Amino acid sequence: MTEVEESESGTPSRRSLLGWGGAGLALGAVAAGGTVAAVRSGDDMDPAAAETGAAVAFHGAHQSGIATPVQDRLHFAAFDVQTDDRAEFVQMLKDWTAAARRMTAGKAVGDGAYGGLAEAPPDDTGEALGLKPSRLTLTIGFGPSLFKKFGLADQRPEALVELPQFAGENLDRNRSDGDLCIQACADDPQVAVHAIRNLARIGFGKVVIRWSQLGFGKTSSTTPDAQTPRNLMGFKDGTRNIAGTETARLKKYVWAEGPDWMSGGSYLVARRIRMHIETWDRTSLQEQEDIFGRDKGEGAPVGKAKERDKPFLKAMLPDAHVRLAHPDSNQGSTILRRGYSFTDGTDGLGRLEAGLFFLAYQKDVRDGFIRIQRHLATDALNEYIQHVGSAVFAVPPGVRDKDDWWGSTLFSKEA
Amino acid sequence: MTEVEESESGTPSRRSLLGWGGAGLALGAVAAGGTVAAVRSGDDMDPAAAETGAAVAFHGAHQSGIATPVQDRLHFAAFDVQTDDRAEFVQMLKDWTAAARRMTAGKAVGDGAYGGLAEAPPDDTGEALGLKPSRLTLTIGFGPSLFKKFGLADQRPEALVELPQFAGENLDRNRSDGDLCIQACADDPQVAVHAIRNLARIGFGKVVIRWSQLGFGKTSSTTPDAQTPRNLMGFKDGTRNIAGTETARLKKYVWAEGPDWMSGGSYLVARRIRMHIETWDRTSLQEQEDIFGRDKGEGAPVGKAKERDKPFLKAMLPDAHVRLAHPDSNQGSTILRRGYSFTDGTDGLGRLEAGLFFLAYQKDVRDGFIRIQRHLATDALNEYIQHVGSAVFAVPPGVRDKDDWWGSTLFSKEA
Repeated sequence: MTEVEESESGTPSRRSLLGWGGAGLALGAVAAGGTVAAVRSGDDMDPAAAETGAAVAFHGAHQSGIATPVQDRLHFAAFDVQTDDRAEFVQMLKDWTAAARRMTAGKAVGDGAYGGLAEAPPDDTGEALGLKPSRLTLTIGFGPSLFKKFGLADQRPEALVELPQFAGENLDRNRSDGDLCIQACADDPQVAVHAIRNLARIGFGKVVIRWSQLGFGKTSSTTPDAQTPRNLMGFKDGTRNIAGTETARLKKYVWAEGPDWMSGGSYLVARRIRMHIETWDRTSLQEQEDIFGRDKGEGAPVGKAKERDKPFLKAMLPDAHVRLAHPDSNQGSTILRRGYSFTDGTDGLGRLEAGLFFLAYQKDVRDGFIRIQRHLATDALNEYIQHVGSAVFAVPPGVRDKDDWWGSTLFSKEA
Repeated sequence: MTEVEESESGTPSRRSLLGWGGAGLALGAVAAGGTVAAVRSGDDMDPAAAETGAAVAFHGAHQSGIATPVQDRLHFAAFDVQTDDRAEFVQMLKDWTAAARRMTAGKAVGDGAYGGLAEAPPDDTGEALGLKPSRLTLTIGFGPSLFKKFGLADQRPEALVELPQFAGENLDRNRSDGDLCIQACADDPQVAVHAIRNLARIGFGKVVIRWSQLGFGKTSSTTPDAQTPRNLMGFKDGTRNIAGTETARLKKYVWAEGPDWMSGGSYLVARRIRMHIETWDRTSLQEQEDIFGRDKGEGAPVGKAKERDKPFLKAMLPDAHVRLAHPDSNQGSTILRRGYSFTDGTDGLGRLEAGLFFLAYQKDVRDGFIRIQRHLATDALNEYIQHVGSAVFAVPPGVRDKDDWWGSTLFSKEA
């Protein structure tokens, strides 16, 4: 983040911060600019707000938003590519990276070097102005269909398979797939929505949003000592998730080792899982607990007293969710989950359109999600859920420094 | 709240707190119950979390959720009545009130006197367990169509008019109207969603959700010294809103005086306003500021330096939004706004399905929203927005005490 801070040292003007024209109102403008610098850069924050208000580092060997402690809110967008011009697309990736670098640091889009005229649209749409960085992370992924464009076919990783058809799924193609994805996570939804909107705007004419999903409540934690969140079935979710601090498990299960351009990246599976909330709510407590294999209040595995006690799988019913999904039932398959609850209003029958937007990161989709999901074909939970959207993405390694950009390892190779 | 706390004095069991069966696991159950009592009742909260974590009083002369400082998140649901049985409907209102009293105090639904068996569905769906009260407010309203049922025709307030057709609107009837509404506001969306879900569940067979709307970011504040929130057009919104502390303005503009059963209530207009985000984002800063009549950074009225400076309306263009909506342009009409930004994914053209879910409370809809909205027919902003959903509700006075219930002033009269 250093270059961002350096470029804005001294007293910032509203123009340089926002790329907005200074149409008179000098006093007001300077006052507003000062506030922006203090709040949106993460300086001068009151300690109480530090945890949720802080900025997450954008540069690193891995992209942030994977092992990062899970933020409270999500805006996930899948894009389709419209341009055939590889150079134009690469330039967009560079522009996206520059904007992402600024937004994750709590700054507005635009460095003041262009656009800051009253006669031009503002560089930044403005609705996150005055809000804290809110631990925003932006994570990019490349879908299988992208590798049919721009001469990338030879670069497609073997691990980036199309997902097979799974029992019981009913996928809406309008909520599935995509050439690209951006996962925006933040503790303030307005910050996440702002980020997706501004990236879509920068991509205008080059890419278009194919589908997007808001998530309002995290359902898994990557911080093992934090309170385990509950999903919309009312159960704790993600008790034995991989923690962001478990370097060895991350290396073993999450970070990709190949091909070269993917080293340090990961593979993401996104599934929109609708829950039949009203049916579930009329199910007895005993049946709910039998289905999960954990009790509802504490979250303890069957026969155990506490949430974090090691599950004894054979004490559970053969079709219990926890038993079927457990690594011991899947040749050790382990994935890092960072899903979110969603509620998208109501369907035509007055039922809540609600469920889990499941996001899982893994070293190889074949040994991860695919193996586990196949094993869940007999899951007792399937009576109450249905997978209605699906996508898979290769998530490249992190942006190393201020000169690097999203996808450089893939596109530099071939350029 | 006293009766709730009294009933749970001493060491609470999970059964009494949740209405869930204690299926063994005594140690875990007591530990979980203890956590629930401490966290969900608002006791023992760390001071840093007090502001957003606290409980808002449910009882009072007015319903909470109107003059209450605006919370961060919204789940709004409109219901249609299915039952013809007045006694059954009144019982549901009483059951709703009891559940609302508990949930706003941070407790789970169900007092332990019924239901807590492993063989029965849990009284509470569970996903808010362990979360703070989060300043949850639940506010009920009665739509014009309710007064065609249950022999209520004579009780319909004159002020509860059907809204006239306004220029440029394009209303989706599936996102409009409703016999009843519940506005759930909270600082945690999971708490707001949980409340609507549990009320819908209690109402099963008597009422059904007609439509619902999630809002992720407040766009108006009723706390004048707080930072003014920004709407999705990037402008500060609600600068001169009625504050929750302005008793005289609330009395003059918000609290209804009649008919008797509505005294201390208010009238609510809800409008789903879609923003043409992508078009707006390509509009010059100057045009954006001209349209609003305020500058984008500071929020100062045209020709003024600071946000809270008194607007000089004649300095604005004749079709500027602030000029047309200002009380001085509308015979003094003033409304209390508590709208929320929404983003409901993406439409079929890759555009963000986003905008403002506008909520306004007023003493009389005819002198409030209707007069102002008619005057906004020439609003320059209309090129960038469209009203696509609409509803109006009579919001009865507050629940006085633990024996009172939502709608008692209306239904007791006729029972």
